Amino acid sequence: MAAAATNVQLIGGWPSPFAMRPRIALNLKNVDYKYIEESFAPKSELLLKSNPVHKKIPVMIHNDQPICESLVIVQYIDEVFTSGPLLLPSDPYDRAIARFWATYIDTKWFSSLSGIAKAKTDAEKATATEGLTEGLALLEEAFGKISKGKGFFGGATIGYLDIALGSCLGWIRVAETVSGSNYIDETTTPGLYAWAERFSSDDAVKDLIPETDKLLGFAKKRFGTPAPAK
Amino acid sequence: MAAAATNVQLIGGWPSPFAMRPRIALNLKNVDYKYIEESFAPKSELLLKSNPVHKKIPVMIHNDQPICESLVIVQYIDEVFTSGPLLLPSDPYDRAIARFWATYIDTKWFSSLSGIAKAKTDAEKATATEGLTEGLALLEEAFGKISKGKGFFGGATIGYLDIALGSCLGWIRVAETVSGSNYIDETTTPGLYAWAERFSSDDAVKDLIPETDKLLGFAKKRFGTPAPAK
Repeated sequence: MAAAATNVQLIGGWPSPFAMRPRIALNLKNVDYKYIEESFAPKSELLLKSNPVHKKIPVMIHNDQPICESLVIVQYIDEVFTSGPLLLPSDPYDRAIARFWATYIDTKWFSSLSGIAKAKTDAEKATATEGLTEGLALLEEAFGKISKGKGFFGGATIGYLDIALGSCLGWIRVAETVSGSNYIDETTTPGLYAWAERFSSDDAVKDLIPETDKLLGFAKKRFGTPAPAK
Repeated sequence: MAAAATNVQLIGGWPSPFAMRPRIALNLKNVDYKYIEESFAPKSELLLKSNPVHKKIPVMIHNDQPICESLVIVQYIDEVFTSGPLLLPSDPYDRAIARFWATYIDTKWFSSLSGIAKAKTDAEKATATEGLTEGLALLEEAFGKISKGKGFFGGATIGYLDIALGSCLGWIRVAETVSGSNYIDETTTPGLYAWAERFSSDDAVKDLIPETDKLLGFAKKRFGTPAPAK
């Protein structure tokens, strides 16, 4: 059940994993919000005014105050709305570990993931694939340590790091389709494989991850991503 | 006065602004710690074991548990040690703003700062200089809004965002020396100019910012930075 009206607006874009993060967090916290799909044709006045530094989605506007950067927004949501489970772990060390991996995903691993859709040459694709699979191997190992058999990085429920990685699942499926290889599977990454199923089917998430074909069409237009390998 | 022994070790390197951040935070919190200067010749076993993902400084080890990534460590220090002022603002929106700008510094602005020392061509130097000055103009404006005349981004005392930006002051001075231009001065960035003086002379900071000549010598060896313009 949704909490009382909270004067929350979220400027997003359907293909963006970053824009998906605050939406998942708001769903988990049962917060009603007004979703505004950014057209980018041209960038809206609201976006330019709300995020003058980066001019990028997502932006959350809460009580007329804009907040930018997906992970900053998710932390803000966690701190302001008590109408759902805590997203960051309550223990400071566990919190540091969740922040470490979320930073790893955004500053290191994500460029490999998007690199597969953007690759113009076989060499670029090979480099991106190597970074993607190495990162997933590290995240598989981290999942074993952090989740302690409870199902999510956040324990029994979806948390901060689940959101950071899970928001990328649609683009992982695009990379798999483009390459004709599975990067998250039962053999190589059994922990993440089961986790991805659980995450994608959660009520807070399931309507937000775009269809792979639709994302692939977007990637083709935007990055010139070639037709699937299989 | 230092707090009781806390079993804290910090692996750092004197030229690194990132390694300076947790040291300033520990000083502000009056926490005793053992400082270990990483030699990188080769990387120490302790570093490789404590930060197997990035193999980079800084790493803080608290009660035998390693924490990596400078801003993650500073947040951890803030949450665990109550023996000094709060580093993050207590208001969630102010906290989001501090996190936003710290992320901006690390993911966007810092590459321009280091780009001046690393530039091989005039074009590279011009691009880096433009990014550096544009960023400082944004940070000057942000300083006016955030500090509200209290002296620091963190208010009356040094906080999270002060640490994130202030740790770069040594390298800003290197960039100024290399270029023969002042990037933080009384005319263009009067707020940051006075702030930089206050920050650099604070007891928690003053022994940690390296001499510009020493940093310049390091830059020359490491990046082939040319001799100063003046």
